Amino acid sequence: MNHKSNNTQAEKLSGEDLAKHNSKESCWVIIHGRAYDVTEFLPEHPGGPKIILKYAGKDATEEFDPIHPPDTLDKYLDKSKHLGEVDMGTVEKEEKEEDPEEKGRQERIKNMPILEQCYNLLDFEAVAKNVMKRTAWAYYSSAADDEITMRENRNAYHKIWFRPRVLQDVTDIDLSTTMLGTKVDIPFYVTATALGKLGNPEGEVVLTRGARKHNVIQMIPTLASCSFDEIVDAAEDGQCQWLQLYVNKNRDITKRIVQHAEKRGCKGLFITVDAPQLGRREKDMRSKFSDVGSNVQSSSGDNVDRSQGAARAISSFIDPSLSWKDIPWFLSITKMPIILKGVQCVEDVIRACHAGVHGVVLSNHGGRQLDFARSGIEVLAEVMPVLRERGLENKLEIFVDGGVRRATDIIKALCLGAKGVGIGRPFLYAMSAYGLPGVDRAMQLLKDEMEMNMRLIGCQNVTQLNPSLVDTRGLSMHTAPIPTDNLGLNVYDPLAGPKILSRL
Amino acid sequence: MNHKSNNTQAEKLSGEDLAKHNSKESCWVIIHGRAYDVTEFLPEHPGGPKIILKYAGKDATEEFDPIHPPDTLDKYLDKSKHLGEVDMGTVEKEEKEEDPEEKGRQERIKNMPILEQCYNLLDFEAVAKNVMKRTAWAYYSSAADDEITMRENRNAYHKIWFRPRVLQDVTDIDLSTTMLGTKVDIPFYVTATALGKLGNPEGEVVLTRGARKHNVIQMIPTLASCSFDEIVDAAEDGQCQWLQLYVNKNRDITKRIVQHAEKRGCKGLFITVDAPQLGRREKDMRSKFSDVGSNVQSSSGDNVDRSQGAARAISSFIDPSLSWKDIPWFLSITKMPIILKGVQCVEDVIRACHAGVHGVVLSNHGGRQLDFARSGIEVLAEVMPVLRERGLENKLEIFVDGGVRRATDIIKALCLGAKGVGIGRPFLYAMSAYGLPGVDRAMQLLKDEMEMNMRLIGCQNVTQLNPSLVDTRGLSMHTAPIPTDNLGLNVYDPLAGPKILSRL
Amino acid sequence: MNHKSNNTQAEKLSGEDLAKHNSKESCWVIIHGRAYDVTEFLPEHPGGPKIILKYAGKDATEEFDPIHPPDTLDKYLDKSKHLGEVDMGTVEKEEKEEDPEEKGRQERIKNMPILEQCYNLLDFEAVAKNVMKRTAWAYYSSAADDEITMRENRNAYHKIWFRPRVLQDVTDIDLSTTMLGTKVDIPFYVTATALGKLGNPEGEVVLTRGARKHNVIQMIPTLASCSFDEIVDAAEDGQCQWLQLYVNKNRDITKRIVQHAEKRGCKGLFITVDAPQLGRREKDMRSKFSDVGSNVQSSSGDNVDRSQGAARAISSFIDPSLSWKDIPWFLSITKMPIILKGVQCVEDVIRACHAGVHGVVLSNHGGRQLDFARSGIEVLAEVMPVLRERGLENKLEIFVDGGVRRATDIIKALCLGAKGVGIGRPFLYAMSAYGLPGVDRAMQLLKDEMEMNMRLIGCQNVTQLNPSLVDTRGLSMHTAPIPTDNLGLNVYDPLAGPKILSRL
Amino acid sequence: MNHKSNNTQAEKLSGEDLAKHNSKESCWVIIHGRAYDVTEFLPEHPGGPKIILKYAGKDATEEFDPIHPPDTLDKYLDKSKHLGEVDMGTVEKEEKEEDPEEKGRQERIKNMPILEQCYNLLDFEAVAKNVMKRTAWAYYSSAADDEITMRENRNAYHKIWFRPRVLQDVTDIDLSTTMLGTKVDIPFYVTATALGKLGNPEGEVVLTRGARKHNVIQMIPTLASCSFDEIVDAAEDGQCQWLQLYVNKNRDITKRIVQHAEKRGCKGLFITVDAPQLGRREKDMRSKFSDVGSNVQSSSGDNVDRSQGAARAISSFIDPSLSWKDIPWFLSITKMPIILKGVQCVEDVIRACHAGVHGVVLSNHGGRQLDFARSGIEVLAEVMPVLRERGLENKLEIFVDGGVRRATDIIKALCLGAKGVGIGRPFLYAMSAYGLPGVDRAMQLLKDEMEMNMRLIGCQNVTQLNPSLVDTRGLSMHTAPIPTDNLGLNVYDPLAGPKILSRL
Repeated sequence: MNHKSNNTQAEKLSGEDLAKHNSKESCWVIIHGRAYDVTEFLPEHPGGPKIILKYAGKDATEEFDPIHPPDTLDKYLDKSKHLGEVDMGTVEKEEKEEDPEEKGRQERIKNMPILEQCYNLLDFEAVAKNVMKRTAWAYYSSAADDEITMRENRNAYHKIWFRPRVLQDVTDIDLSTTMLGTKVDIPFYVTATALGKLGNPEGEVVLTRGARKHNVIQMIPTLASCSFDEIVDAAEDGQCQWLQLYVNKNRDITKRIVQHAEKRGCKGLFITVDAPQLGRREKDMRSKFSDVGSNVQSSSGDNVDRSQGAARAISSFIDPSLSWKDIPWFLSITKMPIILKGVQCVEDVIRACHAGVHGVVLSNHGGRQLDFARSGIEVLAEVMPVLRERGLENKLEIFVDGGVRRATDIIKALCLGAKGVGIGRPFLYAMSAYGLPGVDRAMQLLKDEMEMNMRLIGCQNVTQLNPSLVDTRGLSMHTAPIPTDNLGLNVYDPLAGPKILSRL
Repeated sequence: MNHKSNNTQAEKLSGEDLAKHNSKESCWVIIHGRAYDVTEFLPEHPGGPKIILKYAGKDATEEFDPIHPPDTLDKYLDKSKHLGEVDMGTVEKEEKEEDPEEKGRQERIKNMPILEQCYNLLDFEAVAKNVMKRTAWAYYSSAADDEITMRENRNAYHKIWFRPRVLQDVTDIDLSTTMLGTKVDIPFYVTATALGKLGNPEGEVVLTRGARKHNVIQMIPTLASCSFDEIVDAAEDGQCQWLQLYVNKNRDITKRIVQHAEKRGCKGLFITVDAPQLGRREKDMRSKFSDVGSNVQSSSGDNVDRSQGAARAISSFIDPSLSWKDIPWFLSITKMPIILKGVQCVEDVIRACHAGVHGVVLSNHGGRQLDFARSGIEVLAEVMPVLRERGLENKLEIFVDGGVRRATDIIKALCLGAKGVGIGRPFLYAMSAYGLPGVDRAMQLLKDEMEMNMRLIGCQNVTQLNPSLVDTRGLSMHTAPIPTDNLGLNVYDPLAGPKILSRL
Repeated sequence: MNHKSNNTQAEKLSGEDLAKHNSKESCWVIIHGRAYDVTEFLPEHPGGPKIILKYAGKDATEEFDPIHPPDTLDKYLDKSKHLGEVDMGTVEKEEKEEDPEEKGRQERIKNMPILEQCYNLLDFEAVAKNVMKRTAWAYYSSAADDEITMRENRNAYHKIWFRPRVLQDVTDIDLSTTMLGTKVDIPFYVTATALGKLGNPEGEVVLTRGARKHNVIQMIPTLASCSFDEIVDAAEDGQCQWLQLYVNKNRDITKRIVQHAEKRGCKGLFITVDAPQLGRREKDMRSKFSDVGSNVQSSSGDNVDRSQGAARAISSFIDPSLSWKDIPWFLSITKMPIILKGVQCVEDVIRACHAGVHGVVLSNHGGRQLDFARSGIEVLAEVMPVLRERGLENKLEIFVDGGVRRATDIIKALCLGAKGVGIGRPFLYAMSAYGLPGVDRAMQLLKDEMEMNMRLIGCQNVTQLNPSLVDTRGLSMHTAPIPTDNLGLNVYDPLAGPKILSRL
Repeated sequence: MNHKSNNTQAEKLSGEDLAKHNSKESCWVIIHGRAYDVTEFLPEHPGGPKIILKYAGKDATEEFDPIHPPDTLDKYLDKSKHLGEVDMGTVEKEEKEEDPEEKGRQERIKNMPILEQCYNLLDFEAVAKNVMKRTAWAYYSSAADDEITMRENRNAYHKIWFRPRVLQDVTDIDLSTTMLGTKVDIPFYVTATALGKLGNPEGEVVLTRGARKHNVIQMIPTLASCSFDEIVDAAEDGQCQWLQLYVNKNRDITKRIVQHAEKRGCKGLFITVDAPQLGRREKDMRSKFSDVGSNVQSSSGDNVDRSQGAARAISSFIDPSLSWKDIPWFLSITKMPIILKGVQCVEDVIRACHAGVHGVVLSNHGGRQLDFARSGIEVLAEVMPVLRERGLENKLEIFVDGGVRRATDIIKALCLGAKGVGIGRPFLYAMSAYGLPGVDRAMQLLKDEMEMNMRLIGCQNVTQLNPSLVDTRGLSMHTAPIPTDNLGLNVYDPLAGPKILSRL
């Protein structure tokens, strides 16, 4: 049996037809009512073959959607494998067994706090943690190895303290600034994060709309759930978007992506340089274990076969050979400003400067790549004095991301010399919990916080922010206290106040 | 129907009359048996209109009292809106539903520890936490953002250690000192804190009486629950009081307040400079959420309408344009010494010096304004060496507040160069839990502690306190340990002592 | 009725007689079968009058014994108030109500771990905490204010790390050293601690016997439960003891005590200089609250009357005027070496040197006096380099106490220049839990630990211990981490290992 | 009755015969079906006589096996004491009472996570903790005194952070290196750990097989459960093994061991220099308490008799007199490179260099010897700059062990100058939980982690690793935070997010 995908008017395939192709030898799947023969594609699938085989002969739409942009099949599966429409009425509905965890989640969704009870960005995360699917939560929230760097990203801001000035006229506060020539209302941008549909069925376009409302820039991720064009289409006239790029081994593909983005109006090209290989995230791996094949992130740890498949798969779309030698080529194929995303020490910032790029993002990929990478804000404090010493501070726009949750964090980064900060997960959580209104409120909270805190440190606008307003002496200190004296702690009888019936 | 407030002998209004005016279109409320038409005032109410509308057509006395000094209506509501007496017998009593939380609180009050079981200032806080109304507790105890600065205020004292001298004759200990020319028994003063009636029905006058008994100075808050004159009237002849001032946009009002205070005998004008906008305190906001309109602190975060109302409202009484340029004017309208309250770095202390003011309070407003502001005591350690280097150490009296709970804290501040320390929340808690006897005991405990500790560091009086008595090397270190190694911690099997039947 | 104490052959007093004198106006008490009229003594009692009045007209022996040496009445109560023997058969036995706490304690004693299950000094404390009377435990374990210094005493040793040398011949280890000319088996001594009978009915003589067995020196406390002579009598020929001295306002009394000690063979006079007033220990105060009058430590905090009584009382036996001027007098009245106990900074060590005393103990009184006093070991690290610089390192013997629990602590102190270390509470706990065998085992454990650890750092004897063997870089750092980011901590989903049925 | 061991064809001994020799006076035991007269050996037994007496007259095989290599009896018990075979049918089987702990353990084993659920080395430890026998777990996991050093070993790596380089071509990663001339696939080796059969009935040969599969070196322990020859026999042709050596007082024995090892092909002699006496490990002692005599590690703490026995026993096989003077002799008896294992400060590394040895292992024996010894990695950071300054960095190969759990740890050590790292406990845990497949997976995980992390720091091979890739500023800081402010902590009302039905 050989169904051509180009047969028009073809009678629809039946569920029964499909069901026969349920093995490695012949594997068909249904996506959005259409059948595809993925047998040959199995070994190349970045997520490994097992996850596809789980749906061999069946409807895979629900699992497929959050992970793949809608144009995936057109782009990556030869047309000859597009088998045409399926008569969905003939496809056996799978009885989903009642999942107590899912039941609990639905219960929690019913009892969700109303949006107005979220007073800060962490509140959205608290809600999202409780209402998201476990695997989606694990994918968003996980990070590399022991997740030390992810948490340090937040900690690092806590080590920076203010030296505010009083008695400044702060009647009118102007939070606006420009990034790569674009004027924005407040110095943050929505940074690129993968797989937006895991959190919200509409995916990244929700963030596009939020960014538009608050006049901030959205960076479009290579690994979006929506297609690139969908995300651009969701923008309004004049709304600024940037492109985040994983560089493909096949530079023609890369060139096509870049030039397409430029044509569609993207105003900045952010080349990811901290991910020659996608990180191992154990929380994510553990959460997917029961779902045996669904290892989105292609770990090589669980068994040899899958490991090899994944290694090959990844190498098909991220190029580990990407190096400084490639920069001139990038400069030659686009007029968009080029920014290196994921630079992590001052030596590389200087090198970036000499390479002629327009900016860097000091970032560790949200802690998802190399554990014990330092926070972007710490690197910023290392970078700027050296740049100033060498007169290079205006040659590049310096951005920083990772761990930003409060407007005070944004102010700290700008005091230390950043042009703007990227915020990723918090908007994902706001979107996952409350959709666009969540994103809107999250951004508004940042604006409200920032206006107030600008007043409180005595600055009217972002140009007044400077290093003398912060005390960073504790920033670079990475210490752990001496291990607990358990015996001593156990015998100590802690001082207690007067005995009272406690509130609880 | 148009009731004039100046009709004498008028027959009383009935509850039924009132009940008709229960909307935004016509909003009357009863306060202490008299009716007021607040319809036009609604949009200007600093706390937002919703909280008033909740009581439209009803008796609002109970809610009104702790938040507003008794002269508020006379001062801020045009006499034409004073509608005259209400026949309270005709006003329907609202059936209060049994509140399990309130019931629990009454239970806890019944079982309160007796006053003699409070051995230190923190003990009062422990009791207050359990016997105060939740919203009152939240208002007093809350601070800005993550409340990091509020807690750091306490921590900072813990980073200062003593280098005591032995074999000094410490038979007679003299704790007295002078502040702005006034002799006091011990170098602390009761600093200004808002809304005293939330904690005690009598409000700030309780603190006046406590201060008198122990011969310390009380700073009268602008946002007191009692009126300024009530608080001054509660003082005895010769009892020293200071005025804390939020500067009004309308400088005539400010001038009137200042000159009235001077006339009534205030001996110092403390201009708050760390609050061009009142801080966001999320714990407070959260505690009031159910009580939908009662947002005392005028957050702009919860919805757009209220936010705008609040912003306008605040700007009506605190002037964000206040700046160094205004200082000469203040010096021209009063002979009281002028002290800037809320200075937070050495640069501004020097500027204050040159501006000709008489002192500064190194303060971050109890952590209620800018989170990650440094503690006053840390700023003090930064300030004094510079002042001494420049020969300015005697040009200003330097005060410090925030986090003082022990007499050792007072001694540390004086060793580092402070003239005195302000103590706020602890006396509020003592007053809330035990009234005047609580305040009395709290002050006595500080005296007892201080006498002992003066002996133990080898000083007879406060003039002997000097920097060589303290070790401040760890004071300015703001670090957080490396994030927890959860996997490592989980596998570690902690050492335990011999197995014993435990005391519990 | 006026009973003379010197009437011989007197008929015994009856319980009925006594019972009449049960008030402030006439207060008789029975101690060890004899009656005493303490009416006039009441206001002078260091522990306040209330605790005596509780036993007015009754047998007070049980309460009296642990707090007072047997010769107290002879020394401090005029013979005319000694009323003679009581016919104890006629004294009504007080029915003690069953105390559930005491019952629990007896239960715990029955289930005590056997001595061999104590592997280190902290194990004794763990046992003692569970088997001692609550008030006794509170008295021993409590410290000043927030007990920060007491715990820092332990922490400080944890900040010192070893730099051991390998490949040294450590076959034979010699732990012995000399202190003030006396040869001892191991460089610690039993330091003075008050009220030994609270922990063991025999009191301090148990420690005397333990010290003898292990050939270490015992320092006899002024506030012992046993009389000085009892403790000296318990020593064997040639066993070295020292005298700890609280200096009395009445220098004749002090002189008598000192010269008596010298005559009885004491080999060192340790003058306490860190306690011009006895510290406030809130845990102790709180534990005694129910027992209303029994405030052993004479706090002034709980009510005015008792406070004044206590202040007077204390001044009757500890002289707060003691100063450097008194040192020559002490040098004139005794040939014993004089050591100042409680010196806390390098300036005072140098002063002690110039004053001609023979040594100092760097000590903060076990954290029981001034909270935020630095640990003795930290002061030692400050002191020795300065002494060496000035060539004074051999002019004084430097001792250190506080927080020593492991032989490694002793080694650290000796590496830094101490001649020996004092150990107090651990032996009290060992004695309270297991009596003399406990003290014996505690000392043996220290010897075993020390022999091993000497080998492991590569030293054969204590003269080889030197500063290059330790790394003290973290020692003087007094920091507290930034206050917890509670919101952040709550949303973080900690990494967990594979799910396993846990051992518990 | 006198059975000669050399009587061939002898009738077998009966259980009844044996049972008579059940006392100190005559003590026979059965091991693997043969009887031995150990009466005279009792006082010399390194583990003390009690543990043997427990099995006097009985079958001791089960207890004997994990602790003793099979050739022990041949080596250490005179042939005249080998009494010949026992008719095991006549030996009374001991009824083992049901042990609820063992029952729980069997239950946990049944529910063990499958191997694929272990994603990192700590996961094996988590499983092992739950499925190993309590005493075996205690022996492996315990360390000296308060186990501070053991935990610091792990902490220390957490204080080192990366400064990665981006845009390096990292397509091909080569993890291989050489150690003492042997090429290995990845720069770790299996370090020597005692008593492998406690975790797995096959013992150390399991590690031999794992090492072979991954082409890494195994260091053979002196105190292995398998005999030296068994372990060598388990290796394949060309597989590299090293010998760890405890130096015996009897140098002839030592010489024989060393030369035998060299003859059998060992490629390195690692002389343990940090254990002139075996450490006290209280967790281990406590776990064995009930099993009264089984004190493997010969503590001297529990009673005098055993202590003396143990001291003597130890001195019989570890020589505390071993010193630098012995090094020339070692160099004279073998051509194997000689490495000193357990060097702990730079002074000794330099001395080792001058002594002509070929390397050092910076190690503290897994924290099992001297508590408060610094971590090997910290010592490494102290050592290398000095060696480089003196031009000695290539004179020695520097190894480091202790606390390595992640490939990032290996990379950190190599960046700082180590040639390789030793890993011990993790492989024991992997072996105890899952046998050879566990060891295999553990090693594979390290390879996978390392390949990824090499890419992420921008290095293709280990020669590119250098100090500029790490930030070690916090490494040598040994601090403990100020003791907890319990009163303050108790009154603080922690900020909480919106109330949500929690996931649990």
